[in-house]
Amino acid sequence: MTAPATSGATPAESEAMLRALDLAARGVRGANPLVGAVLIAPDGAVLGEGHHRGAGTPHAEPAALADARARGNDPRGATMVVTLEPCNHTGRTGPCSVALIEAGVARVVHAADDLNGAAAGGGQRLRDAGVECIGGVEATRARHLNERWSAAVSTGRPFVTLKSAQSLDGRVAAADGTSQWITGAEARADGHRIRALADAVLVGTGTVLADDPRLTARDGTAPRARAGLRVVMGETPVPGTAAIRGEGFLHLPTRDVPEALDALYSRGVRHLLVEGGPRIASAFLRAGVVDELFSYVAPLLVGDGAPAFPGLGVATLADAGRWQPDDAGGPAVLRVGPDVRLHLRPPALHPA
Amino acid sequence: MTAPATSGATPAESEAMLRALDLAARGVRGANPLVGAVLIAPDGAVLGEGHHRGAGTPHAEPAALADARARGNDPRGATMVVTLEPCNHTGRTGPCSVALIEAGVARVVHAADDLNGAAAGGGQRLRDAGVECIGGVEATRARHLNERWSAAVSTGRPFVTLKSAQSLDGRVAAADGTSQWITGAEARADGHRIRALADAVLVGTGTVLADDPRLTARDGTAPRARAGLRVVMGETPVPGTAAIRGEGFLHLPTRDVPEALDALYSRGVRHLLVEGGPRIASAFLRAGVVDELFSYVAPLLVGDGAPAFPGLGVATLADAGRWQPDDAGGPAVLRVGPDVRLHLRPPALHPA
Repeated sequence: MTAPATSGATPAESEAMLRALDLAARGVRGANPLVGAVLIAPDGAVLGEGHHRGAGTPHAEPAALADARARGNDPRGATMVVTLEPCNHTGRTGPCSVALIEAGVARVVHAADDLNGAAAGGGQRLRDAGVECIGGVEATRARHLNERWSAAVSTGRPFVTLKSAQSLDGRVAAADGTSQWITGAEARADGHRIRALADAVLVGTGTVLADDPRLTARDGTAPRARAGLRVVMGETPVPGTAAIRGEGFLHLPTRDVPEALDALYSRGVRHLLVEGGPRIASAFLRAGVVDELFSYVAPLLVGDGAPAFPGLGVATLADAGRWQPDDAGGPAVLRVGPDVRLHLRPPALHPA
Repeated sequence: MTAPATSGATPAESEAMLRALDLAARGVRGANPLVGAVLIAPDGAVLGEGHHRGAGTPHAEPAALADARARGNDPRGATMVVTLEPCNHTGRTGPCSVALIEAGVARVVHAADDLNGAAAGGGQRLRDAGVECIGGVEATRARHLNERWSAAVSTGRPFVTLKSAQSLDGRVAAADGTSQWITGAEARADGHRIRALADAVLVGTGTVLADDPRLTARDGTAPRARAGLRVVMGETPVPGTAAIRGEGFLHLPTRDVPEALDALYSRGVRHLLVEGGPRIASAFLRAGVVDELFSYVAPLLVGDGAPAFPGLGVATLADAGRWQPDDAGGPAVLRVGPDVRLHLRPPALHPA
């Protein structure tokens, strides 16, 4: 048995890891993490590439092996560079560790360790079979890539992102109910990019009846090729003509947040984006399940319109937790056209 | 008669102008603009310096002449570098143009033109007397220095800055009325710096009764040597024990915004800072007299507490004007500790 190393990647392997991270990000989120892999020759030449395209499709390493063979490249003696420790687990596909051993790969360089109980141990199995295996290369970036997915798997419920858009004085509509548009076109386009990161987007029945949104994720003007689930939550029926209907539409006829989260997790949703309206936003906040908040603030003063977070149940100021600016994935405070986007994480449960 | 030039300053004169701008900023705001002056010899040596210290005290140019004489320096043949065109007007002091001619100054270099009807024409008078006079040197910085003062003089009412501090969802207090503190210590210190720029700070009687503020401007922990007026507006009597009482205290027993502004202007107030509470803020906004807004937003969600701008009278979203980020004096969106400060100018009256 060889002790696992956490460094020692060659320059060519480090370069291949950056490429593998880029490939991973092309994947589809959901029940499985994002993973990318690059197979390189001892001289650093790229023999094959692959990434995981979603549950039920090949993992990144077999995809890279298949790509190498399709190019007429022999994997024997090569090095597999992969963003996640190869799995040791037979699910809808066989263990990647075994596929790599059988292919004659001589060395494996991975980024993050696989901490998922059922799948872990691939590195050890490779080493036991005489394959060199090192981990920890670009591990921070690799962990960040699947941060929300990992949080969901560890808690057993979807990671919840709440997105809201409001006037400076915290209103989502004017006194007569008009609400389009509070934020500008740039903020709305930015919101579409956030939508594209999630497995599912959720609104309440009130929003469906008021705004009839499509909830598709758009890059620029074109809808994404493969959109996530579009979920309506609430007991009111969704009209048969609602724009949200179609492939990927789901109605959860409940007002209970934990019940909705359970139903979505069992459908493979690991990252849920809650878009409103205000009653839905407040329900998720009251339930204490909002893991991050993107708040778009437009420089408008609306006065006595509909509040963004009605009925939060905060009685006194000391009970209103102080949310934390999150700069990990970009500036926590970002100007988006004439508007401002705040990226916040929930208050610590036990503030210092 | 010589045509006025707008360039042609020597390097020594340009350097002296930067010094004069720094000196000007040390002055006291109020009925008169901020002005600084540096008298230099033909070889660039500094002979004397001065700045205006407030209505009833010498203007900057006589102050610099006096400083030169006190240092034993002869002003004859020297160059006066001054941030504002010398005045041509006899008020509580005589015209600076005449003082410069009588002192034998050979050349005057100024930044901004004096556009105040009663005082204008000093440059021409100097040229008529054979003194070289050029303007426009560092004029943008000089105009910025007195921008709020100039706006007040041109409109005949104080320039109004509104400062507010609120939770992300637009609340200034929680459901039970608790309001201290929504913003953090850094934001409150920043607010004190803004307070120090104004001639007067105004709150409503409700704020006096609820919070009993002192409304002094503090740099760090020490109160400013010379604070501006501390004004309470409203018909409710101000308790004899209120912390706001003392030198510089003024009670305006009215709810009428134009009446209050008239009273303050006639007392020499050219820049008014309105600090609240919410009803006062809304009254000034409804009156259409808010010239700039500093809004401190704390990342708290309070829910159903007191709104920052109640009763604005905005019926539909199209009536809520879009305020404009102002980056002229620093970033329009600024992180201040855990909070965010927005610096906004009012919507254009006729949006494009």
